[in-house]
Amino acid sequence: MSHCSTMGASADRSIDNGATWTSWGATQPELSASARSLLTAALGELTPQRPVAITAATVPVSRLPAAVRADLVTALGADAVLDDDASRARHAGGQAYADLIRRRRGDASDAPDAVLLPSTAAAVSDVLRICSTARIAVVPWGGGTSVVGGLAAQTGGAAAVVALDLSRLDQLLSVDHLSRTATFQPGIRTPAAEAALAAHGLSLGHVPQSFERASLGGYVVTRSSGQSSSGRGRMDDMVLGLRLATPVGELVLPAMPGSAAGPDLRRLVMGSEGTFGVLTEVTLRVRPLPECVRYEAWAAPAWEAGHRLMRRIAQDGPRPDVLRLSDPEETRISLVMSGTAGLKRRAMDAWLRARNVTAPCLVILGFEGSDRDVRYRRREVRRLMLAERAAPLGAAAGNSWAHHRFSGAYLRDTLLDNGVLAETLETATTWSQLAALYAGVGEALRTALARDGRPPLVGCHISHVYPAGASLYFTVLAAADPGREIDQWTAAKAAANAAIVAAGATISHHHAVGTAHRDAVAADLGGTDGTGIAVLRAVKGLLDPAGILNPGKLLPEEQSR
Amino acid sequence: MSHCSTMGASADRSIDNGATWTSWGATQPELSASARSLLTAALGELTPQRPVAITAATVPVSRLPAAVRADLVTALGADAVLDDDASRARHAGGQAYADLIRRRRGDASDAPDAVLLPSTAAAVSDVLRICSTARIAVVPWGGGTSVVGGLAAQTGGAAAVVALDLSRLDQLLSVDHLSRTATFQPGIRTPAAEAALAAHGLSLGHVPQSFERASLGGYVVTRSSGQSSSGRGRMDDMVLGLRLATPVGELVLPAMPGSAAGPDLRRLVMGSEGTFGVLTEVTLRVRPLPECVRYEAWAAPAWEAGHRLMRRIAQDGPRPDVLRLSDPEETRISLVMSGTAGLKRRAMDAWLRARNVTAPCLVILGFEGSDRDVRYRRREVRRLMLAERAAPLGAAAGNSWAHHRFSGAYLRDTLLDNGVLAETLETATTWSQLAALYAGVGEALRTALARDGRPPLVGCHISHVYPAGASLYFTVLAAADPGREIDQWTAAKAAANAAIVAAGATISHHHAVGTAHRDAVAADLGGTDGTGIAVLRAVKGLLDPAGILNPGKLLPEEQSR
Repeated sequence: MSHCSTMGASADRSIDNGATWTSWGATQPELSASARSLLTAALGELTPQRPVAITAATVPVSRLPAAVRADLVTALGADAVLDDDASRARHAGGQAYADLIRRRRGDASDAPDAVLLPSTAAAVSDVLRICSTARIAVVPWGGGTSVVGGLAAQTGGAAAVVALDLSRLDQLLSVDHLSRTATFQPGIRTPAAEAALAAHGLSLGHVPQSFERASLGGYVVTRSSGQSSSGRGRMDDMVLGLRLATPVGELVLPAMPGSAAGPDLRRLVMGSEGTFGVLTEVTLRVRPLPECVRYEAWAAPAWEAGHRLMRRIAQDGPRPDVLRLSDPEETRISLVMSGTAGLKRRAMDAWLRARNVTAPCLVILGFEGSDRDVRYRRREVRRLMLAERAAPLGAAAGNSWAHHRFSGAYLRDTLLDNGVLAETLETATTWSQLAALYAGVGEALRTALARDGRPPLVGCHISHVYPAGASLYFTVLAAADPGREIDQWTAAKAAANAAIVAAGATISHHHAVGTAHRDAVAADLGGTDGTGIAVLRAVKGLLDPAGILNPGKLLPEEQSR
Repeated sequence: MSHCSTMGASADRSIDNGATWTSWGATQPELSASARSLLTAALGELTPQRPVAITAATVPVSRLPAAVRADLVTALGADAVLDDDASRARHAGGQAYADLIRRRRGDASDAPDAVLLPSTAAAVSDVLRICSTARIAVVPWGGGTSVVGGLAAQTGGAAAVVALDLSRLDQLLSVDHLSRTATFQPGIRTPAAEAALAAHGLSLGHVPQSFERASLGGYVVTRSSGQSSSGRGRMDDMVLGLRLATPVGELVLPAMPGSAAGPDLRRLVMGSEGTFGVLTEVTLRVRPLPECVRYEAWAAPAWEAGHRLMRRIAQDGPRPDVLRLSDPEETRISLVMSGTAGLKRRAMDAWLRARNVTAPCLVILGFEGSDRDVRYRRREVRRLMLAERAAPLGAAAGNSWAHHRFSGAYLRDTLLDNGVLAETLETATTWSQLAALYAGVGEALRTALARDGRPPLVGCHISHVYPAGASLYFTVLAAADPGREIDQWTAAKAAANAAIVAAGATISHHHAVGTAHRDAVAADLGGTDGTGIAVLRAVKGLLDPAGILNPGKLLPEEQSR
């Protein structure tokens, strides 16, 4: 089986990354000399910034009424109701740039008033009952990885707000081998879920960059999409059944392979971002552990040729499981940043020059499955790649990508230490609109973040493809404006949101809405007259009559219609 | 290209079947001598029944208030507001057994009070506005093919009820070649839609048995699934965008390849069965016309081996586009009924006996795509078939199936003429529950329809597969109880519904809810405490505050919670 190896994603899946309140993991990479010179050459002077330790964080006094606290202790036990400063500070926001900047400054002013750690689905229902009655806001909390403000501890006018941390609901409950389904509690993190499934010879195969910390429940309620979406599909397509605890009762949607029994209410829970209720169980599609895992890298000769390749593969197949195309800028940046990666850069440059390729676009292909299936798909995809004059860079470069697939989040902390604004955003549209969307968003970011005539570095990749279109994922690196970092990004994000809406694209392909997109989500949700938003408000009004669930997320501020 | 032919579904797609108010098409097959002897041997004496002509039908006086009629004429034009007896009688119900029996008796007592034929989306909105204000019930009408009572002209307490016939909204509006999408008006029938797409070299490929008469809008709001679902997916997966006119405004959901911008409201419209609004546009995925179309028949040695085959193909692929497995009874019945079909029965019997197969199960495989793709999939599927000791019956038998794929509905009229109760029902569940579901529903039908110790004929097939499970489609033939036909089937249907619910399966895989399943849909929609049903009622309350849209469908009668 020389075409096949077992390295790649599977090998990395049980990492305990030892996150702290300001860092993604216990360790951070150093910035290589080449990366440092790229950044200063492009961005000018950078002002290093050191994060404040959690022990020095400013945490406001908890507003949780004593009577409510007592009710919660009675229902959950004292060890499940935490209101110490450190627990609360650790639940102050997620992983958006603004969240990180606030915490790095030692600012935990937006910490929840308490952190609840229920151990059972019944305890989750108890929390919703107690908090509904007392009108205390509840922010459901999975892996804490939201990059769109989905975890902001807003009260929505309530007297206090608690984080409902689901990390004790972390079990694989059952496996149906014949039907290839598995039922989980929502708080299980992906590495633990994969480890539990691996004991059954199974795998979920949902691999977003947040893999190490994100929870399965979080994936479901935010409509996540992983790096293997080309083969495995979105999380939307993997959910067969679920249970949702709401303040007015439980919604139990059984695991069905397909149905026409009315609207699929699972799809109403997916994307609800904790505003309708709290997931307590989810049944997902699983697959056998792959016999064969194979990554490879290619260079497409240009962004447009790369688009055409992505489209042809998405429309006519067969598809790899992982399919990514970086634009020339992202390709250039990532070759410099990856430093120790397996891409032998000088050799590659020579190889590409010989082929007259001046702005190569990195393509990553990943295949997982049976030997037979992988062999067939590789051969067919190779045929298409060669037809578009893409150049093979080999398995070592592909494996290097797979090995470093989670490294971006660690590197980001290093960049922030070095005074770099580092943030990402993403969208999707149809193939016919993709080039205009790419141009519009890139232009908006470059204009908004230019300083002293220097544009930021803006890279982009396509990593989720469909027959009808694809996502665009932008990575932005700019010189942070010391003390004004949040305003600086807020303005750029607003410009990007406006460009996305103007292009008729979706405001989020897989990061969800949270607070970052709520004011730009109208077109996605049924038009600017607000009919679709009114539908969601009607559902919320029924399920959460006290309005305690994750206030301020998903839906725009209510205005008189 | 000897492995390939262009016959099959595509050739049959432009049929104008000349339906009448009691017959599916202009012509009906004769019952062959062998079919007649099978039926009388199994079912005993049959009492032939002749349908009453529409000119002799009993149609009640229209209750539509003159003022409302005048408003509708002003908005739509006189030629778009029909209240003559024939127009109304033709809109009395759909294609359920009870609907056919009533019409065959000349009973149009459940005809709508008028038939409206809007030509524009704006006219649809006008109808909803006028009827909301006047509190007149509206039954959206596409192809008239509902088999679950979805078109019953119930008033829901209103003074009158109109059928909103969308057949003048029958255009292909636009095609996006690069993104492989097409935008249609909802009333276009499938043959016309395929003809319009074929002019662009494209095809939809949604081929349910109702293909000749059903409308695209109907498919969307009932979550249809066609015979090619194994390759093309359900209608759910083909919808990218839509516009829904509601009494309170329009819901415009743009065509997006994938999104995490809140819950997917398209999925709330799909399955709403005209109770939330009226579809005025839908954007669907389309594909190039296939280069190669190939059907073939096989015999699986037993039902269990056939299950295993279906499951292995669904889970590990590659998949054919059409994948069907008939149980021994359906195989036996269809071989007799098909009469002139290409299956050379005696030769086949000898072939199977030589292989010790006593209860063969017919398997149909259909492949459509590029030569290259079809060749690969055929070879891989063949390998699996042979591994399960299935016997190839050849391309002629497969082509015969494809040629007769729409014939069941015509044959049914002949069976009814001959005094046979002929009806179908379907469900789906996970692979691990499929055998129990099959046994339970079969037993319920045989018990409920036994007469004088003779059980009915009950055949079953699997025709929609998923990695997690499959559908079961039952066909029932019994001696009709003259004059009591509707009660006879109602009792059997109730028994089947109860068996489906007891097995934890879905009450409908692709026929929808209508009136036939509304009292058995609770478990599918979120549990017996009614949380999910309350969610749908909240949405309906918002979008249809006057409660005029398709009363009595989808949702159970409201009870105090």
